[in-house]
Amino acid sequence: MSGGPLVRHLGGFRWEGIPVEAYKPEGEPFRDVSRQRLFGAGGAGELRYFEVGPGGWTTLERHAHVHQVVVVRGRGRALVGDRVLELGRFDLLSVPPRTWHQLRAPPDEPLGFLCLVDRERDRPERPAESDLARLREIPEVGEFVRV
Amino acid sequence: MSGGPLVRHLGGFRWEGIPVEAYKPEGEPFRDVSRQRLFGAGGAGELRYFEVGPGGWTTLERHAHVHQVVVVRGRGRALVGDRVLELGRFDLLSVPPRTWHQLRAPPDEPLGFLCLVDRERDRPERPAESDLARLREIPEVGEFVRV
Repeated sequence: MSGGPLVRHLGGFRWEGIPVEAYKPEGEPFRDVSRQRLFGAGGAGELRYFEVGPGGWTTLERHAHVHQVVVVRGRGRALVGDRVLELGRFDLLSVPPRTWHQLRAPPDEPLGFLCLVDRERDRPERPAESDLARLREIPEVGEFVRV
Repeated sequence: MSGGPLVRHLGGFRWEGIPVEAYKPEGEPFRDVSRQRLFGAGGAGELRYFEVGPGGWTTLERHAHVHQVVVVRGRGRALVGDRVLELGRFDLLSVPPRTWHQLRAPPDEPLGFLCLVDRERDRPERPAESDLARLREIPEVGEFVRV
């Protein structure tokens, strides 16, 4: 962070002084996802920018805290609960509490999105085999999920 | 709001089911500013989209709550404290507590930005004549401010 009121966008969804971080530790189930923390301490919630590379996907998980997402780059698809939704630029996505969710980029372009969360939040839960079995009973969801 | 997890962007920074509202009541000091509430109750903070039309400006004010801004359309300038800053697309702006601020669009294009705030926030204060006199001691600020 610069410490000043302004952080410049450098182009390509990179910002002055904001590191491009690992989305989660290596070994967790995800593919080609990075994280940048745009606004953190001292404000309202935390606003992060996530980018999922072509063919990549976020971790299939659920938690009590809410995700509020604004797509700002490319397009993709999201599982929310038992529905697979198409995402386009500037679409808004809300993930309710305790709802399974996963975001995927298409094979040919990245999916970049802002994600707003409370600063205080619970640890995500990953699906047990029984959860996966239930999700896979819905053919569209079974085709979508990656673990 | 649709009530579902997805709110589609209709193009041109308008969203399905989200009304374009007045920024403030008529008679307050501003020019050509609209507001759309993207995320509100039930989540982390509130995320709003503000659009300032060409030549328009927001109200010069200050308050205890923090503003966290992401420019998503066009460009503009912002007064924050005693500095006038150039804003480009995807630049990030933080307005600290109790800091005079105003945003202006250029004459030839709109300035659109996401603004994140806490749900609980104090009422903005407008400058007294003595505050304006102090601000106008800085030539760049005196040229910038609109009341």
